[in-house]
Amino acid sequence: MHSHWNDYPTIQNKLQVVCSFLEKQLTVRNKDIQDALVEFSQAGGKYLRPAFFFLFAELGDPKKQNEEELIKVASSIELLHMATLIHDDIIDDSPLRRGTLTVQAHYGKDIAVYTGDLLFTLFFEVLIDVMNGSPFMATNAQAMKGLLLGELDQMNLRYNVNQTIDDYLLSVNGKTAELFWLACLEGAHFGKTSPQIEALAGEIGRNIGIAFQAYDDILDYTANEAILQKPVLEDLTQGVYTIPLLLAKTKNPAAFAPLLEKRANLTEAEAKEVAALVVHYQGVEQAKAFARSYTEKALAGIQELPAGAAREQLERLTKQLLKRNH
Amino acid sequence: MHSHWNDYPTIQNKLQVVCSFLEKQLTVRNKDIQDALVEFSQAGGKYLRPAFFFLFAELGDPKKQNEEELIKVASSIELLHMATLIHDDIIDDSPLRRGTLTVQAHYGKDIAVYTGDLLFTLFFEVLIDVMNGSPFMATNAQAMKGLLLGELDQMNLRYNVNQTIDDYLLSVNGKTAELFWLACLEGAHFGKTSPQIEALAGEIGRNIGIAFQAYDDILDYTANEAILQKPVLEDLTQGVYTIPLLLAKTKNPAAFAPLLEKRANLTEAEAKEVAALVVHYQGVEQAKAFARSYTEKALAGIQELPAGAAREQLERLTKQLLKRNH
Repeated sequence: MHSHWNDYPTIQNKLQVVCSFLEKQLTVRNKDIQDALVEFSQAGGKYLRPAFFFLFAELGDPKKQNEEELIKVASSIELLHMATLIHDDIIDDSPLRRGTLTVQAHYGKDIAVYTGDLLFTLFFEVLIDVMNGSPFMATNAQAMKGLLLGELDQMNLRYNVNQTIDDYLLSVNGKTAELFWLACLEGAHFGKTSPQIEALAGEIGRNIGIAFQAYDDILDYTANEAILQKPVLEDLTQGVYTIPLLLAKTKNPAAFAPLLEKRANLTEAEAKEVAALVVHYQGVEQAKAFARSYTEKALAGIQELPAGAAREQLERLTKQLLKRNH
Repeated sequence: MHSHWNDYPTIQNKLQVVCSFLEKQLTVRNKDIQDALVEFSQAGGKYLRPAFFFLFAELGDPKKQNEEELIKVASSIELLHMATLIHDDIIDDSPLRRGTLTVQAHYGKDIAVYTGDLLFTLFFEVLIDVMNGSPFMATNAQAMKGLLLGELDQMNLRYNVNQTIDDYLLSVNGKTAELFWLACLEGAHFGKTSPQIEALAGEIGRNIGIAFQAYDDILDYTANEAILQKPVLEDLTQGVYTIPLLLAKTKNPAAFAPLLEKRANLTEAEAKEVAALVVHYQGVEQAKAFARSYTEKALAGIQELPAGAAREQLERLTKQLLKRNH
């Protein structure tokens, strides 16, 4: 398990069980896919969504909880996450993810399409195993749809210089925040908290998701490749204009126009020019303030939760998102 | 609705309702995807699987049936079929499907990946709507997994000159027969027949599926492009060696070896040479006998069903598969 969780002893062990459970699920008769799946699952994913799931579950009554159920629901969330990552990497033509070759770069697009599909199937298999008949089946389908629509929004907005912060938010709400919403909501639900805590958990998850994505987008402009473990400015060169650029551009659209007009023909040197303009027009600082406002909303929500070790850890983890560099 | 169904008045109207239901499901906020989905759904799919579903349902007691439930289950089968077709066309780089451009050829691979994903989501949404809590949820997940594993088998076997008829059967059992199995089984189940008829229906469906795929593979060697509405010898040039080639090759492997060794470098002229060899070594005739044996197994199963209009139509439809030229 990722060293990240050494400071979170109550969930570290549970994440390890999720990891083992996932490995068992990822058994198929096709060797290439099997290799791709296992390699991908072991490539250092942080299991951030299952972690939030377990922290919210800890707010509930342990006597009412079913440990196996919790492990399976947490695993289903990670399976959905993995499936969408693999298909996203096809769309983005990404060579690297988590410091290793992406499935599509290593095995080709064909295998990546089916590997992602297979993960969607495993996601539903686990759901059916653990919650068939529950209204949370529909909640999961809704989350999966929300994720995809967010990705599609982002694809539709490519190279669109007229997109607004609201466009960005709609896409991020789907592609990233939806899964944090689901993880926190399901943690509270299957951890047997209360309807009030469930509602709060979903809201906290959504705010964490938006903050998380905004920091991710900031890193594209501030981190170096070695730390990020993937190419920097990748979004920009793909025509995905994220919050630092969108905020900087409002200060002087004309400065950006000649570069962004080049669309897919933007060179690496020109991408660096855009990045310099983003920094010059306080895009990074403004984006940090934007992200911080969502982190603060999340922290305010967390303060409304029952006091205790789980709340303390949730607060600490959420604050850590402000400091992360990869 | 496809003119094919003019001779099947009892199901023609139901297939029309499925068509309308699907159109309503295919509503998303992303215009490109919306267009791709609607265009694809209207491109003349025959709804063969929903047709078998309804014919088996007609064997049950209409008083016990829920018409809306039947429409939704039939639609879910077609949604799963559509999703896999779109992703298959990415793998095969197919330009044409049903005489029109494939989603990937028209809108690009990126949109095709997400359009397929969205159809998987709609598939599960409809399932959850109509059968949440039923053991048939797991049956559907199993079918989806079987389909994908069959496609993966086929991908793994590409350009493999040592593959056997059993390899072919394993792949076809997944990629094609699984969905006919599901359609017939679910028709019998949700049509409220009996456990005996359900078991028989599944078996009949599986045999029909294998025969169907074998005829499809034969057409690749016998039909011309205008009739087939997609490129001929497409499988061969992609390294997918189907039943006519596998059977012909057993008669004289050495005759095929120098051509098949060229793998992806096989020219169009050389592909035609292979096709001529397939005909010369009775590959087409043998494959027809192979397909006929599965059709006959299916017909024998149908004869065990209760007599009546539904059985008569099932028999007629199954026999028609022997005569189809596209």
